[in-house]
Amino acid sequence: MAGATAHPETAELVRAGGAHVPGLLSAIEERLRASADGHGPLLAEQAGLTIAAGGKRLRPLLVVLSAGRPTDPRAADAVLRAGAAIELVHSATLVHDDVLDGAALRRGRATVVARSGRAMATATGDLLFARAFEELTGGGEPEAIKVLSRASSALARGELLQRADAWNPAVPLERYLRRCELKTAVLFEAACELGALAGGVSRAGLGTFGRRIGLAFQILDDVLDVSGPQERTGKQPGADLLDGTVTLPLIVARERDGELGRVDLRSIATAEQAARLCERIVATGALDAARERALTLVAEAKADLPTGLDPERRTALELVADGVVRRYS
Amino acid sequence: MAGATAHPETAELVRAGGAHVPGLLSAIEERLRASADGHGPLLAEQAGLTIAAGGKRLRPLLVVLSAGRPTDPRAADAVLRAGAAIELVHSATLVHDDVLDGAALRRGRATVVARSGRAMATATGDLLFARAFEELTGGGEPEAIKVLSRASSALARGELLQRADAWNPAVPLERYLRRCELKTAVLFEAACELGALAGGVSRAGLGTFGRRIGLAFQILDDVLDVSGPQERTGKQPGADLLDGTVTLPLIVARERDGELGRVDLRSIATAEQAARLCERIVATGALDAARERALTLVAEAKADLPTGLDPERRTALELVADGVVRRYS
Repeated sequence: MAGATAHPETAELVRAGGAHVPGLLSAIEERLRASADGHGPLLAEQAGLTIAAGGKRLRPLLVVLSAGRPTDPRAADAVLRAGAAIELVHSATLVHDDVLDGAALRRGRATVVARSGRAMATATGDLLFARAFEELTGGGEPEAIKVLSRASSALARGELLQRADAWNPAVPLERYLRRCELKTAVLFEAACELGALAGGVSRAGLGTFGRRIGLAFQILDDVLDVSGPQERTGKQPGADLLDGTVTLPLIVARERDGELGRVDLRSIATAEQAARLCERIVATGALDAARERALTLVAEAKADLPTGLDPERRTALELVADGVVRRYS
Repeated sequence: MAGATAHPETAELVRAGGAHVPGLLSAIEERLRASADGHGPLLAEQAGLTIAAGGKRLRPLLVVLSAGRPTDPRAADAVLRAGAAIELVHSATLVHDDVLDGAALRRGRATVVARSGRAMATATGDLLFARAFEELTGGGEPEAIKVLSRASSALARGELLQRADAWNPAVPLERYLRRCELKTAVLFEAACELGALAGGVSRAGLGTFGRRIGLAFQILDDVLDVSGPQERTGKQPGADLLDGTVTLPLIVARERDGELGRVDLRSIATAEQAARLCERIVATGALDAARERALTLVAEAKADLPTGLDPERRTALELVADGVVRRYS
């Protein structure tokens, strides 16, 4: 069963986390499957395929690694619920994002919106959200629900911010960083906090760790969008630019090449135009600067891990942080 | 402040509920406003307008009336949180429904999707969902969260069911009723259950009451869609038919006029064609049969109200049930 969750990018982390990790991750997969199956054929079809399409399951892994080795069945149950809930919320946002982007493929398969239309996809996303709260509520831990509801609210606010700032090449750095926090980092933070809650350790330290590596993850994702190559990202370089989404590489590059700050993003309509703009961004050295910022965040995340953490958990979390950086190379 | 919530259709219910009701409803309005204001200008703009546009606030009223007169500040707080949360979930579904329907107006104002596009509206709906859980979680009552998450999941499943059954004139009665339960009745049930939880009375009896009047509400809404008149419903007669949504009037009518069961709903493309189909449905007497079913549900709801209920609460809830029927006349 462990094989079901051993995504090549996380296999090493799973091993490092300890002997209990593969079993917990498999059980989370089971829960995710059951979550889709138990609600009639329609959900099984729509949400089930979304969930079955997989992904790295990085957020459930963060829950499991933050929780450490469960000391009793109640703690193990809390880990499983939290891991499933956080992935359900993540899947819900992906399904809705695909609706808004009109995306045809996700994780190499047809998206819900491509298969079944916008209406089904919007409802499927709503359902995955609701299922996340149902899953977590079963554990009866109000603090956990608070963490998830705040994170869900942040995700939606991040999406609002992104749409509000679309096509604006002058978007300030602070606003970009805030968007990354809301869209990505807060869910990483929530995963670590939920793990800490389940594992009975202090939330604050692990939460900060999660937020920092989440921010680094998003920044490096934005770097990859400019640098490609396509066979690694599965996307054309400059897909964000074609969407009107301004990210750190362009923000840094426009300081170095004044003309880039005046580009009308709406005039970038073809993959070729986007690729040419990417080349100009690369030429400024902006990618190195952006990558530097991400590496600093990862280093800080590792350095500030709580001192009282057991060695097994510390090592595994450090590897996760390194893994975020390795995606780039 | 009470005036802010005294929608003409519910003013009498507010009076009958007792002296504490207007104050609680005003406090719920305050909470809804604060819920939108406290999350930055983007949410304030999108969600704030949605919330400010009002509506009958029937679901918060059900929470308040089911809870009875709060005996201590903790109970009052639970009522306010539940009332706000249930209206936030309801608003979230309206915002998403408007996205899917491409609706221009809601409650006489421009919808979020019409003002700001699909992306902003989808994110706004997601945010309202998340805010509902944040609101309720503040009260620290896991049972309440369970009620809301199940209801939210049901709403999304109802939406999926409706989309799956669209354009199928042969949809079975049972499936229609199930859709009404999921799309409408479950949120009425949740409102009554949340009120009962806050008021410290048994949930089951009040929950059943809520489910029945919710089902009656939806059936009568579907009758109104066929019968009009437009100045009362704010919609063209037959709007559901134009959407491909098959409801009880057509389900009853097709048994009486066999040709109606063979109508290709996709061929109904204009308001005139929809109006003509409505006339054929009316001619079968199907509206009376549908109304009869709703009246029976309301009578059962009233008759089965828990015996131990204090007279003030009983009277108010009976009036709500009657109010559901009165919408039709």
